[in-house]
Amino acid sequence: MDARTLDPPHQLDIAALAERREPGLSLEAPFYTSDEIYEADIAGIFSKHWIFVASEGEIPDAGDYVTINLGTYSVIVVRDDDEEVRALHNVCRHRGARILTDAQGSVGNLVCGYHHWAYATDGRLRHAPTHGKDFDMTCFGLKHVAVQVVSGLIFICLADEPPEDLARVADIVSPYIAPHELGKTKVAAQVDLVEEGNWKLVMENNRECYHCDGHPELACSLFPTFGYGSSDIPPHLQPAHDRYLLAQTELEARCDELGLPYVAVEDLTSRDSGFRIQREALDGAGESFSETGESVSNVLLGDFEHRRLGRLSLHLQPNAWFHFLSDHAVTFAVLPLSSGRTLVRTTWLVHEDAEEGVDYDPEALTKVWRETNAQDAAFVARAQLGATSPAYEPGPYMPSEYQVEAFCTWYIARMQEHLSS
Amino acid sequence: MDARTLDPPHQLDIAALAERREPGLSLEAPFYTSDEIYEADIAGIFSKHWIFVASEGEIPDAGDYVTINLGTYSVIVVRDDDEEVRALHNVCRHRGARILTDAQGSVGNLVCGYHHWAYATDGRLRHAPTHGKDFDMTCFGLKHVAVQVVSGLIFICLADEPPEDLARVADIVSPYIAPHELGKTKVAAQVDLVEEGNWKLVMENNRECYHCDGHPELACSLFPTFGYGSSDIPPHLQPAHDRYLLAQTELEARCDELGLPYVAVEDLTSRDSGFRIQREALDGAGESFSETGESVSNVLLGDFEHRRLGRLSLHLQPNAWFHFLSDHAVTFAVLPLSSGRTLVRTTWLVHEDAEEGVDYDPEALTKVWRETNAQDAAFVARAQLGATSPAYEPGPYMPSEYQVEAFCTWYIARMQEHLSS
Amino acid sequence: MDARTLDPPHQLDIAALAERREPGLSLEAPFYTSDEIYEADIAGIFSKHWIFVASEGEIPDAGDYVTINLGTYSVIVVRDDDEEVRALHNVCRHRGARILTDAQGSVGNLVCGYHHWAYATDGRLRHAPTHGKDFDMTCFGLKHVAVQVVSGLIFICLADEPPEDLARVADIVSPYIAPHELGKTKVAAQVDLVEEGNWKLVMENNRECYHCDGHPELACSLFPTFGYGSSDIPPHLQPAHDRYLLAQTELEARCDELGLPYVAVEDLTSRDSGFRIQREALDGAGESFSETGESVSNVLLGDFEHRRLGRLSLHLQPNAWFHFLSDHAVTFAVLPLSSGRTLVRTTWLVHEDAEEGVDYDPEALTKVWRETNAQDAAFVARAQLGATSPAYEPGPYMPSEYQVEAFCTWYIARMQEHLSS
Repeated sequence: MDARTLDPPHQLDIAALAERREPGLSLEAPFYTSDEIYEADIAGIFSKHWIFVASEGEIPDAGDYVTINLGTYSVIVVRDDDEEVRALHNVCRHRGARILTDAQGSVGNLVCGYHHWAYATDGRLRHAPTHGKDFDMTCFGLKHVAVQVVSGLIFICLADEPPEDLARVADIVSPYIAPHELGKTKVAAQVDLVEEGNWKLVMENNRECYHCDGHPELACSLFPTFGYGSSDIPPHLQPAHDRYLLAQTELEARCDELGLPYVAVEDLTSRDSGFRIQREALDGAGESFSETGESVSNVLLGDFEHRRLGRLSLHLQPNAWFHFLSDHAVTFAVLPLSSGRTLVRTTWLVHEDAEEGVDYDPEALTKVWRETNAQDAAFVARAQLGATSPAYEPGPYMPSEYQVEAFCTWYIARMQEHLSS
Repeated sequence: MDARTLDPPHQLDIAALAERREPGLSLEAPFYTSDEIYEADIAGIFSKHWIFVASEGEIPDAGDYVTINLGTYSVIVVRDDDEEVRALHNVCRHRGARILTDAQGSVGNLVCGYHHWAYATDGRLRHAPTHGKDFDMTCFGLKHVAVQVVSGLIFICLADEPPEDLARVADIVSPYIAPHELGKTKVAAQVDLVEEGNWKLVMENNRECYHCDGHPELACSLFPTFGYGSSDIPPHLQPAHDRYLLAQTELEARCDELGLPYVAVEDLTSRDSGFRIQREALDGAGESFSETGESVSNVLLGDFEHRRLGRLSLHLQPNAWFHFLSDHAVTFAVLPLSSGRTLVRTTWLVHEDAEEGVDYDPEALTKVWRETNAQDAAFVARAQLGATSPAYEPGPYMPSEYQVEAFCTWYIARMQEHLSS
Repeated sequence: MDARTLDPPHQLDIAALAERREPGLSLEAPFYTSDEIYEADIAGIFSKHWIFVASEGEIPDAGDYVTINLGTYSVIVVRDDDEEVRALHNVCRHRGARILTDAQGSVGNLVCGYHHWAYATDGRLRHAPTHGKDFDMTCFGLKHVAVQVVSGLIFICLADEPPEDLARVADIVSPYIAPHELGKTKVAAQVDLVEEGNWKLVMENNRECYHCDGHPELACSLFPTFGYGSSDIPPHLQPAHDRYLLAQTELEARCDELGLPYVAVEDLTSRDSGFRIQREALDGAGESFSETGESVSNVLLGDFEHRRLGRLSLHLQPNAWFHFLSDHAVTFAVLPLSSGRTLVRTTWLVHEDAEEGVDYDPEALTKVWRETNAQDAAFVARAQLGATSPAYEPGPYMPSEYQVEAFCTWYIARMQEHLSS
């Protein structure tokens, strides 16, 4: 563990820091605290890779939009007049004003509020008042951002040449997700939580259940044994693990019957859109995230007729995770705000026919993950505070934290690619 | 438009950025967002040029003072015991404490609140308790700042050798302003508004009426056709333009009769104190800024007997604009706070004999510009947000925005002078 | 005074700034305003020298702890199971989370709230859930920080090889302090005040009474002639000085009788733990800090039987001062937060047998120093504001400010040592 005793490189040599990263240990402090590495993360990760930002259920109709901040970029994700999902830079081509200032809404044209330049929902400039005679409207359309929709999940990529890998991952994960028919869902609730920690600590925290004793609400329905092998289950979780094995056997039989894929597929490090997907049983009633494990929305997704379909969980590099259940789906997008602050946007999707107050109670629907997110925010803040101390040194990941290690491995490799490009 | 495709210079080479500026386009993003250029603006513009900071009506009597923050400078503008306007650095010569911490007030001596060193209003050190025997009082007077008063408007210059140009501009504009007799006015209201944008965006926003559809209150009395030529008036403003031509003809006849200059004089770019002055008709009743165009103060300025004198408007580089009417005057001082925040200080001056609640209602007097300033602040914030996006690129000024172009031209030339000195 | 006309060194050359410091003048502005020098202060002063952080009365029992922030370090000061005072880095050895997030408390083990790693109060790792087989518990104890207790005052040093000087200073000052028996005191009140100024301005302000006209409450019992020689007493303080001479004669006679040392010992600049200690008379009733000079706690410290023991005052470089009286003690720890913000922690200690509401009233006990601290905070803020102006230049210390000069001399010498190491 030589890295612990090395001095930080002079003038923050990110490449050297990445090069000397020791597998099995948490990253060196600057990866969590340095403004310079934050900028490199925005440039090398969030501007080069496919980033999950929203779901189709958030923009069901033509003209519906959400605005997404990635670093200092602002991007409009809008359903255009032909019902296609578009992503456009939220920067007027006149004098650069931000066009849309709301987080979401619905428009006919995209009209800049400053001097009323008006753009179509596909980005073409439609109207620029009192322009001169040599003015060429076709030169001043909004700049496009690459967009890709995977089974209703919307990804954007700020790079001119986006990685091709997401399409191949889509081929693998779509058979798992498609039956949940996200295109026929609507937003039941969305919560933006600002966590006081680097985005990588937010991701690392999500990738292990070693801390799940701190999630009493979640542990009612999600087996807190995630990440453990059968041989290293902590004694106090042995009963839960035993229940899990039984429930999982039952779930897999049901899935076989219904033709739902469930087998874990995991490729977290080698590909650009590193991922892990698996359908696993839930505890209690086994239906959904709740105190009893019972459903929290009465209208099932897709054409499901059975409630006990467990949780289809997808972990995706670099910034997202998802749970798809029989009665709702929850998406999590991690969006960095600064070296020490991160936005976690959680969205609960229910069937578009489910009626609030009748078929679902937003409080009950969101309770488990609101509580869990708040607990995680406290953990992340602790980790961030710790990393700011000069006494911090990288520490060892436990066996059940192998996905944290995988995230760091993915990250370091992509950062090295970026720095050498 | 090659600038759009160039990379930003390595290590922010401000001179290169200034050199490659393309006429007709807004500035590159760093001019609005970079802390380094903000510092250069303070050093090269706000510390070298004459800056409008206050009016004589704000400090009518000996001992009256205002304190002005320019960058990290703090300057006391005080009327001394001989009734002269002085400007002094607000820094005690003992251990450097800020002497006056209030924004305005009235004093006999300038006494530092820390150890009670006392200075006369002309800056001389009068008293330093229990100093040693070799202490020479004459060595520790407050440092002076250059000050110049133009028809009641107070300018300061932090440079050791201030530009000489302001005196020549004063010769041109004084015949226009003098009849309003600012020396016999008092402050009826003053509002400090912090706008979330770079000071140059605040100035640019002031220099065009292309956005005036966003100023419904202002458009009741100020013709929103400012900046347009007769050939490019937008159709929906044609009726206003027709009214303007009639009203202006009438105003000019009246001015000829009364001996009031009104012809536009414009020299925005070539001189240090670039300016534009013109007396123009107002809409509605034609008297003042109000919903009906009627007066908002009953005691007319100077020895005016006629209320329909339009607005005498002065635009001045780098940081001010003014409207002088028959019944009041409004001054606007733009004072940068950081790369992305700017103080706009608006001051309404009425005749010193006008009585609040009798001759004028502060609410009614200030309504148009309070509303207009708030709208402008929102526009400036949009422009600042837009410029922070890496997708921003300089965009084309429209013909009616020629004064924005002139401001940028003035700015770039002065910045280049500064960088080469 | 050539330094006044020199340009600031290019690229902030701290060594050059230190080298050209002129004795007798306040420091150049960057020492108060620069983030770079703040970092150097943390590295060269607060991470290399003995820093006063707490008193034994704050952690009377095994498991009692306080957490201390020094720069971005967080340190646990805890009484271990053997009743020894320990200092440990507050950074979990697993993934670096901050272990204790409260400012103070009492624990059995030090348990990280993230993944429940548990450490003994002496830092040894006791429990790490589900670790792998090769995991060596003995390699992951909390990192130790040097700690030294002087007559009940707790000092820590972050350096691997702490200066040896504090032990020698302890030999000198312990006979003065020991009779107050701080080990038998308890915390009656503690106030954290954030002052808007550099930590050196906070220290400088403490080291002179030239500003004491601004401390009316303090001047009731503390003679405001501190720092003056008999020849330079300001006329308005002559009566106070005359009372002081009488009271001091009486106090010294009493001390001789009781065997209490009182003679001033001062070595502020030459040693690492520069200090000044002296027992001096109080004004009024002469017993304590209060409006009348009468006691504010009925149970006297140690085995004192006499209330009129004046104030035993200790000034210590770089970050503390203390007053020990017959009825209570007050400690002041200065902890930098940023270049322009500083925490001043004031702690009032009374005899452990004194009963709140019976023997002392916390309001009355703390009044003089709460008021005085608030006044000092305003002075420090003024000085900080002044130093941010480019017009600031170092100014002359008066004769009664010789301890301010001594503090600057100590500081510059230590900073030079640090920079050359």
